[in-house]
Amino acid sequence: MKILAIDTSAVAAGCAVCEDGTVLAESFLNRKLTHSQTILPMVEDMLKNCRLSLNEIDAFAVAAGPGSFTGLRIGISAVKAISFAGGKPAAGVSTLLALAYNLLGTRGIICPAMDARCGQVYTAAFRGTEASLERLIEDEAVPVEQLFSQLEGICQREELPVWFVGDGAALCYGRWEKEKPDFRAFLAPAARRFAHASSVALAAEQEKGLFGPAEELNPVYLRLPQAERELQEKTLCKKA
Amino acid sequence: MKILAIDTSAVAAGCAVCEDGTVLAESFLNRKLTHSQTILPMVEDMLKNCRLSLNEIDAFAVAAGPGSFTGLRIGISAVKAISFAGGKPAAGVSTLLALAYNLLGTRGIICPAMDARCGQVYTAAFRGTEASLERLIEDEAVPVEQLFSQLEGICQREELPVWFVGDGAALCYGRWEKEKPDFRAFLAPAARRFAHASSVALAAEQEKGLFGPAEELNPVYLRLPQAERELQEKTLCKKA
Repeated sequence: MKILAIDTSAVAAGCAVCEDGTVLAESFLNRKLTHSQTILPMVEDMLKNCRLSLNEIDAFAVAAGPGSFTGLRIGISAVKAISFAGGKPAAGVSTLLALAYNLLGTRGIICPAMDARCGQVYTAAFRGTEASLERLIEDEAVPVEQLFSQLEGICQREELPVWFVGDGAALCYGRWEKEKPDFRAFLAPAARRFAHASSVALAAEQEKGLFGPAEELNPVYLRLPQAERELQEKTLCKKA
Repeated sequence: MKILAIDTSAVAAGCAVCEDGTVLAESFLNRKLTHSQTILPMVEDMLKNCRLSLNEIDAFAVAAGPGSFTGLRIGISAVKAISFAGGKPAAGVSTLLALAYNLLGTRGIICPAMDARCGQVYTAAFRGTEASLERLIEDEAVPVEQLFSQLEGICQREELPVWFVGDGAALCYGRWEKEKPDFRAFLAPAARRFAHASSVALAAEQEKGLFGPAEELNPVYLRLPQAERELQEKTLCKKA
C-alpha cells in the first residue's frame, strides 16, 4: 500500500511516499517559508520526480497535531481534500508519535518536545528499543518543569538515557543538563531532529487503526486557540 | 556555510542542502529510476522550493564511492561541473562513511554494507556513540565471510551490538542471525537504511580536510571495473 504523507505541523515542511516500510520518495524543507505556498508544489515535484500520479496512491496521512495551529490546518486541509476527492482513506498521526519515529531504533526514553509558546511544550514519551516504541506519557501541553518531573520519575525506574527530539529539543536538553545532571540525556542528531513526513507515513502504516474516511480527519490542538483561551478567561472573570 | 550534496551511489538518489549542522532541504528518491535523468531535476526543484539559487551555495559534496560505477560517475560529474563552473570547493565523501552518518547517535558497531555483486560487499565499520563515529575498519570490498570474521573479532572485544545499514544490510543481517547467533545485531530502521544526501553533506561539514578544488574530485571504486578485471585475468592466464 502506497501512503503519501504530509507534515506542516512546525517550521519544517515535508512530504513522503512510503510502501511496506520503505521510503520511496521524500522532500523536506526547513527554511521558515509559508507552508500554504510550499507544500503543494513540493508534493507535485516529488510525485513528478518519482514518476507517480496521485491515482497510484492508496492512502494519505498527515501530522494531525499538536503543532502550529495554522500549520496543522494547512496540512490537514490539503490531505483531507486530496483523499476526499479520490475516495481514499486518510490517517491523522500524532505529530509527537511521528517525531518519536525519527528515532526508531534508539534505546532510551524518547521524548519529543515541540515549542508550544506560553512557557509550555507539547510533549510525550516513549520507551524506545531497537525495533519498537512503547508509549509512556500521552500527548500533552505542559510547562517544561512538569515534563521534567515526569521524566525524572521514569529515569529513576529505568536505567535508560533520555533522547530529546523536535523543535523544542534543544531548549529541553539545555535545561535538563543544568537541572538534572544525574540523568544522562542526548539531543537527537541534526538529520533526525525535526518532523519528517516519512515518519508520519511509517507511523500510519505501523500503528493500528489510524486510517478512516477523509471527512473524519481533524486537527488535535491539545489546547484551545489563544483567542478562545482569552475569551474563556474573560468569561470566567465576569462570572467571578 | 551552505553545502549542497548529491548522492547517486546506489539505487536511491538524493540531494540536500545543509548549513551549520542543520538540514535546510532534502529530496530523496528510491524507485530504481535512471540517475542521469532524475538527479538534476531533483536539485533544481529542491532549490526552487527552498528559494535558493546555486549562487548562494558555498560548497558542494558528493558520495564519491564505493558504489555503482555508473551511479558514481553521474553524481561526481554533476558536482564536479557545478562546483568548477562556480569556482567553489567540492568534497568527495566516502559512501560508507555517509551511510554510517545515517545512524549517528546510535551506540554500537555501525557496519555500512553495500551489495558489490560477485559475492562481495563494500563495507567498513565504526564505533558509534551518542555523538560521534570512530572508524574501526577502512572502506573495503570483501566477501561477506571475511567481513563477519572481522566483526566477530570486534564484538569479542566490545560489548556492543552490530548495526547493519545500506542496501546490503538486509542480506548481512539475515546471514549474521544464522551464523553468529551469539552476537546481537540490528537492521537500521527503514527510514535510515539507505544513503541520504544530508548524511553526505553533514559528513563533509564535520570531517576535516575533505574539501578541495573541483578538478581533484574523483570516484573511489575500491576495485577495478569488471572489464579491467577480466582483462587482467586474461593477461595473467597468458603469462602463466
